[in-house]
Amino acid sequence: MNYKMILNVIGKALILEAILLLAPMAVGFIYGENNWMQFLIPAGATLLVGFLLNFSKPKNKTIYVKEGFIIVALVWLVYSLVGAVPFVLAGDKGIPNFVNAFFETVSGFTTTGASILKDVEVLSKAIMFWRIFTHWIGGMGVLVFVLALLPKHNSGLIHLFRAESPGPSPDKIVGKIKSTARILYSIYIILTILETILLVIGGMPLYDSILNSFTTAGTGGFGIYNTSIAHYNNLYCEIVIAVFMFLFGINFNVFYLILIGKGRKAFKSGEFKAYTVMVISSTIIIALNILSICGNFAEALRYSFFQVTSVSSTTGLFNSLNFNNWPTLSKAILLILSCVGASAGSTGGGIKVIRCSVLFKSVFADLKRMVRPRSVVTVKLDGEVLDRNTERNVRSYFIIWVLVVILVTLVLCALNKTDMFTNISSVISCVGNVGFNVVGTDFCYAVFSPLSKVLLSFVMLVGRLEIFPIILLLMPRTWRKN
Amino acid sequence: MNYKMILNVIGKALILEAILLLAPMAVGFIYGENNWMQFLIPAGATLLVGFLLNFSKPKNKTIYVKEGFIIVALVWLVYSLVGAVPFVLAGDKGIPNFVNAFFETVSGFTTTGASILKDVEVLSKAIMFWRIFTHWIGGMGVLVFVLALLPKHNSGLIHLFRAESPGPSPDKIVGKIKSTARILYSIYIILTILETILLVIGGMPLYDSILNSFTTAGTGGFGIYNTSIAHYNNLYCEIVIAVFMFLFGINFNVFYLILIGKGRKAFKSGEFKAYTVMVISSTIIIALNILSICGNFAEALRYSFFQVTSVSSTTGLFNSLNFNNWPTLSKAILLILSCVGASAGSTGGGIKVIRCSVLFKSVFADLKRMVRPRSVVTVKLDGEVLDRNTERNVRSYFIIWVLVVILVTLVLCALNKTDMFTNISSVISCVGNVGFNVVGTDFCYAVFSPLSKVLLSFVMLVGRLEIFPIILLLMPRTWRKN
Repeated sequence: MNYKMILNVIGKALILEAILLLAPMAVGFIYGENNWMQFLIPAGATLLVGFLLNFSKPKNKTIYVKEGFIIVALVWLVYSLVGAVPFVLAGDKGIPNFVNAFFETVSGFTTTGASILKDVEVLSKAIMFWRIFTHWIGGMGVLVFVLALLPKHNSGLIHLFRAESPGPSPDKIVGKIKSTARILYSIYIILTILETILLVIGGMPLYDSILNSFTTAGTGGFGIYNTSIAHYNNLYCEIVIAVFMFLFGINFNVFYLILIGKGRKAFKSGEFKAYTVMVISSTIIIALNILSICGNFAEALRYSFFQVTSVSSTTGLFNSLNFNNWPTLSKAILLILSCVGASAGSTGGGIKVIRCSVLFKSVFADLKRMVRPRSVVTVKLDGEVLDRNTERNVRSYFIIWVLVVILVTLVLCALNKTDMFTNISSVISCVGNVGFNVVGTDFCYAVFSPLSKVLLSFVMLVGRLEIFPIILLLMPRTWRKN
Repeated sequence: MNYKMILNVIGKALILEAILLLAPMAVGFIYGENNWMQFLIPAGATLLVGFLLNFSKPKNKTIYVKEGFIIVALVWLVYSLVGAVPFVLAGDKGIPNFVNAFFETVSGFTTTGASILKDVEVLSKAIMFWRIFTHWIGGMGVLVFVLALLPKHNSGLIHLFRAESPGPSPDKIVGKIKSTARILYSIYIILTILETILLVIGGMPLYDSILNSFTTAGTGGFGIYNTSIAHYNNLYCEIVIAVFMFLFGINFNVFYLILIGKGRKAFKSGEFKAYTVMVISSTIIIALNILSICGNFAEALRYSFFQVTSVSSTTGLFNSLNFNNWPTLSKAILLILSCVGASAGSTGGGIKVIRCSVLFKSVFADLKRMVRPRSVVTVKLDGEVLDRNTERNVRSYFIIWVLVVILVTLVLCALNKTDMFTNISSVISCVGNVGFNVVGTDFCYAVFSPLSKVLLSFVMLVGRLEIFPIILLLMPRTWRKN
């Protein structure tokens, strides 16, 4: 294990976080909130530690797979620990309890959007900005950004990039990682600005527009109001947000291909088609299912489309105050969409559409082989035969995912008074980075015990970093000498 | 597809069922119930069809894997359809509605024990005997028995045997199938008689003792009384039943090895150890968890041991009337035990302990490989390296199992007013052939719509026949010409 290199990268990441902490401080200044110390203290301390860690230059700059996973896991943990400090320092206008603040910060960075706040409207403008800004930071990944700070020609960068980017094949876009990172961030920023402008045009205040664009872009889900998007009761803005939630659940590769004029190829991608079909069909079924509650089909479609794009992109915003009365079928579909999640290479969470496709194709191939043992059956993805190793990895991923859900649910049952279904749906919501809990729109994660909240924080990290970094971080074998 | 051979085997199986139907008829005679026509009519009709199907002797007697699966699936379907007739003919003292009667019969043969009857005590003695006799018939499998009727030296028998016997490797015991079948049935019959004698000694009436031994031996779960075993309030009998439930959840291979004096080897089996550890640790945890309800530890242990052996062997009997007040942790553990199930080569259901072990070892090996990509990691079972194909099959099995649970739950949500957790636990209970529903001891499957009950019947068959026969039966590809 190359400890020096690990510390060095963490140092660089901390310097970045110190800079990021200046943004909410500026917001506080603008609104005259006089709470700049809440951000300056952690920013200063972080900067100091960051510089110290960055001081010793490691001679051996190699990063292997293992180091890649460990760096990613540690950076996200450290980011969350630091990010929780402003909430604690803000006292009544923040989250005085550190465990709660840590949960909320992890939920922010992992773009989950699960909240322990019963009343989010007590937060100061600056704290609310920081809370939702974490979504935007975490959506694209902090390390992808740090890559630009790392020395050139480092052969291990790909491991960092792979460990942090969602989906089984983030290296599809282009060969060079740095230019890839630049392209990804450009698309991310442009789409965020575009959404902000469209929301402002719809009459939403600028502050709200920016934060709602952050929460959408990162597919986070923290709302500015207790009633989330229902607060505005603005059909135009709802549609804008729903469409952008859908867009941020798409593989960014699709946007890149459109940008370079290869739109046709982009739309032919199996994952894009599967994701779109999933969203459209779920929207229609749920709209029909909630028809009796909504009165007319247009209204039903409005709530259905918003909730489906919200959950399938794993954002988790909501616009219907009647959600708790929705029929079981609709809730079941949303729960399944939470598990499936968005596309690989998007900012969304979940198992990812592409993994689910591979999984289906893979077991179906096994059934085919059973019927005709002597025939050769291959699994194809976008016209190409999938190699056995990728298939195996996807299967492992799914199995570990299911085992994590079962195990964590069991622990929640042991530690809390909540019922079993609440525990299951909370775990799925956290591991899928959805945040929205089908149990109800007024569900609050504050019901869980402190230890459960720490556990769920790790579950959110497990989901965001796609299982392996966090599990390897906790495996004794990782730390043993070769 | 060798249709002639398929029909021929089904014919032989039907003749056997006609004979089996005479047993409840005899019970009716003994108790002077005058309901022999309820059994003679289906027995006569079945015998006639059986002989007709058996009349044409196929020249080509080969049974390939595919035919093996199809025969098993069809025989179990036909058995359930025929077996439902006495219930319908019995009217008020049976189950007049055919869909309900079919559900109950499938539940019987698959040794699930899920019931649509709110009040089981209205049944006549003969009908109750038939209801629980189906557990005993289904426990060991009908086709294993039919094997004795088939011509010698048929190379395809192994496929039949494999498709019907629980677990991934039923051929471990001995080379020759017929002698294996004979040994298995002998062990089954001896243990059943032993349990009956022990229950009679404990003061249980002979009729009850026989039926409770049937339900235990087949790991079924149908009770003679609405309050199941709690009706007797007899500690000795409870312990006898609990111990036998545990025994019938063990791989019969263990008993065989003990019989031939290789007891040491038997107890070294990884699956036996895992199953035992699972039962003991769950019993202790649940006993501690329900301590406050039961008052003292001995009492807590009594209820905990019974419920754990009942659920982990997938029997589904219960002895505690306070179960509904048990804490969530206990219920969650029982739900997980329902999924895991009993040992391969036992009469129990579920995914099977051995599959779960392989699954854990397999994904753990993947994690190890991730830490040290260049090291060679193998998965071992009982000291032997597991071949990649078995590993792959176990993974497929688990994945398909999870997908079936999700899909069927979704359909139940669409067709019924029951809540999502009730639907999930009902599906797990049916696919695991447990019958006992953690939702509550008074839960009755009559709440589901007729279509749901048919679907759940198929789910029970999917569970009992270990997924593939029923899925292949329903796949169009199976019926296409090569």
